[in-house]
Amino acid sequence: MRAVDIITRKRDGAVLSRDEIDFLIKGYTAGAVPGYQMAAWAMAVFFNGMNAEETAFLTEAMLKSGAVMDLSGIPGPFVDKHSTGGVGDKTSLIIAPVIASLGIKDPMMSGRALGHTGGTLDKLDAIPGYRTALTAREFRRILAKDGFVMAGQTREIAPADRLLYALRDVTGSVESIPLITASILSKKAAEGAEALALDVKYGSGAFMKRKDDAEALAQSLADTGAVMGMRVAATLTDMDEPLGAMMGNFLEVEESFACLEGGGADDLMEVSLALAARMAALGGKAATIDEGRALCEEAIAGGKPRRLFLDNIESQGGDARRFLSMLGKYRSEYHADVLAAHGGYIARIDALKTGRAGVLLGVGRDRAEDAVSPVAGVQFHKKRGCAVTAGERVMTVYAKHEAALAAALPLLEEAVEYADDAPPARSLIWKDVASACYGVPV
Amino acid sequence: MRAVDIITRKRDGAVLSRDEIDFLIKGYTAGAVPGYQMAAWAMAVFFNGMNAEETAFLTEAMLKSGAVMDLSGIPGPFVDKHSTGGVGDKTSLIIAPVIASLGIKDPMMSGRALGHTGGTLDKLDAIPGYRTALTAREFRRILAKDGFVMAGQTREIAPADRLLYALRDVTGSVESIPLITASILSKKAAEGAEALALDVKYGSGAFMKRKDDAEALAQSLADTGAVMGMRVAATLTDMDEPLGAMMGNFLEVEESFACLEGGGADDLMEVSLALAARMAALGGKAATIDEGRALCEEAIAGGKPRRLFLDNIESQGGDARRFLSMLGKYRSEYHADVLAAHGGYIARIDALKTGRAGVLLGVGRDRAEDAVSPVAGVQFHKKRGCAVTAGERVMTVYAKHEAALAAALPLLEEAVEYADDAPPARSLIWKDVASACYGVPV
Repeated sequence: MRAVDIITRKRDGAVLSRDEIDFLIKGYTAGAVPGYQMAAWAMAVFFNGMNAEETAFLTEAMLKSGAVMDLSGIPGPFVDKHSTGGVGDKTSLIIAPVIASLGIKDPMMSGRALGHTGGTLDKLDAIPGYRTALTAREFRRILAKDGFVMAGQTREIAPADRLLYALRDVTGSVESIPLITASILSKKAAEGAEALALDVKYGSGAFMKRKDDAEALAQSLADTGAVMGMRVAATLTDMDEPLGAMMGNFLEVEESFACLEGGGADDLMEVSLALAARMAALGGKAATIDEGRALCEEAIAGGKPRRLFLDNIESQGGDARRFLSMLGKYRSEYHADVLAAHGGYIARIDALKTGRAGVLLGVGRDRAEDAVSPVAGVQFHKKRGCAVTAGERVMTVYAKHEAALAAALPLLEEAVEYADDAPPARSLIWKDVASACYGVPV
Repeated sequence: MRAVDIITRKRDGAVLSRDEIDFLIKGYTAGAVPGYQMAAWAMAVFFNGMNAEETAFLTEAMLKSGAVMDLSGIPGPFVDKHSTGGVGDKTSLIIAPVIASLGIKDPMMSGRALGHTGGTLDKLDAIPGYRTALTAREFRRILAKDGFVMAGQTREIAPADRLLYALRDVTGSVESIPLITASILSKKAAEGAEALALDVKYGSGAFMKRKDDAEALAQSLADTGAVMGMRVAATLTDMDEPLGAMMGNFLEVEESFACLEGGGADDLMEVSLALAARMAALGGKAATIDEGRALCEEAIAGGKPRRLFLDNIESQGGDARRFLSMLGKYRSEYHADVLAAHGGYIARIDALKTGRAGVLLGVGRDRAEDAVSPVAGVQFHKKRGCAVTAGERVMTVYAKHEAALAAALPLLEEAVEYADDAPPARSLIWKDVASACYGVPV
């Protein structure tokens, strides 16, 4: 078997076999297939795609390239969620303790902020002492004790995915639906998830700007999951405006905790409960999404998720009492307000511009090696549909330093769109795509 | 400027600027742009193509990556030909002395056999003492003296083309018309040719099997030449059957010399004179193709091309007297005949199968590092349209050793197709594609 023949077959539209895909992935991981061949192959996949079976072969080849978390001895079910990324998207921090309180285990491995989108690990790192670099032993112990664990992906997990992603990033093949699918599912399968709720976002702040691209990705994830025997429910949600009332690392942890105390913003609770309800159904705790949602709302009202959240801070090296004392206070000293330029209504706050401003403020990063600030971010006092008078406070902005503040403010001002009339109401949940063969109740 | 952005723009169908193409080619040649980015870019070009202007920018960038032959002080015009490669295609050896005899200089840099197609340098190497590795000084001296020179491309010529071709060869992007165009034209421009007759072949023994692919390449060559200010006439010719009565290294030199003595096979003379006639027109020696052809026929009848051929052997290190003494005798001792399996007519001799048999015999090679034999090859006693009786001799086959003979014979037998009736007559010259803006008279 020769890599050039496999590249040429994919270039000419052929369906690759499991052996061919294994040959490429094993060879690339071992250094026998050079980067220039993988890059050409990835570009051919960008143009000619892969069907669900090929994508499953790729996912499994990347999964097999590294270690798989051994969760034996811990009672399941193991259900995780994954988001394609957004601005102000902190639903993982809310959902994990909620579904853990229902008896579902969430073995969560997350990523870092990149570009305009935030990263769960950077948010958790804003909690003093909190450790996301866990050994497999710690990961298992905390999962068994708290019902959820939030950690970074170890270097042993799917190394082929890490290598291939880094290559795609510099060779223009990031935006390939089957390659994105295999990247997501290989990591989620490696952490031990049996079922998966996927939040596939569309809109200006999402990876997929267009609804039809997001839907195609959701369908690919569901179909590939079906081939692999993994129950996947993919929900298409709106990411045109930042989610919730906060964007920032500590700010988003704080807002997540507020949600568990019953004080969550409507848009954030809508998306969080929608995903948690699907996970409850995927984990067999609810027969329908509506039942799942009711269970989650009851759980929050009962206070258990809030306690689990604080327990998890202690389990992962933080100090729950200190965390509580920081709420409302842990903010950058470099701050300013964005005031309404017009009276009327907020028509829209653009998620992409807000996220780009976040990179300037220190919330996110453009290069993987850059540091982020725990205390930078934006608090939104007004969002889409709110009435405002000219000069009224729309946002409070926190920056890593004075120059960052000055750089970000014009972009944030530009992100706010005004209208004379209230914009029409809208739902953030567009539709579900599920692995039909598993009968996930959506 | 970042390579990934250029790759992504080409992937998304954009037209690249001269600066972008220069950035990639300069960077790749200098080692600043890695192979994985060039391979991804080449694959994006495979899918999205390049227009004539982009292709000219690429050609010029590759040309500028190395040395350009300085022909100043030598009176022109400088006209060369290039063939996309075939089986039994020795027209260069015939054409160069013919057009030199008309007062046109042909500064020819050629390549080696690869796969089923032959290589001019391997044929010339079959002449004892003949040197194709010339210094620039020798190249100029011989060109000025004999009116033509036949040499290999030096390492100083278009290094970017050599690097990129080697990369495309292992990453599945050889079959890209703009990349093929730039590869051909950059080398021809570097040797000093002002005008170019291109023999773009189609059929089983050609690089382009299909007429429409060959036509697209011819059009790209003509259009790109026009943008660069190089007069290009591209002629589409048939390569479904080996050209002429010989395939082999010394065998083809011998046949070429026979053509200059007036004894050439009809098909070989048809293609050689067609190309030489166009070169005569491109070089301003004839007002029409028909006039050019008449001049070439007169020249051959007058004997000057034959003398120039022998002079060139001496100029490039060979011994003309020894060469003459080898004619009809310099053959491998390992030989056998292919006899007609049926009576009737030869319907076709498949060029690809014959060329593949040539690799087994030692005429060609599958890997650039393999050696070839001067004395291996095939003499065709019968070709398409010839009447045969069962058992009559169709070919005499010469191999580098006994095992090669045994391996090649079944393939050669299989290459011969028979029919009860004579196949219809056909022309080997399909049509011309020329740089319209230069008014090349075709």
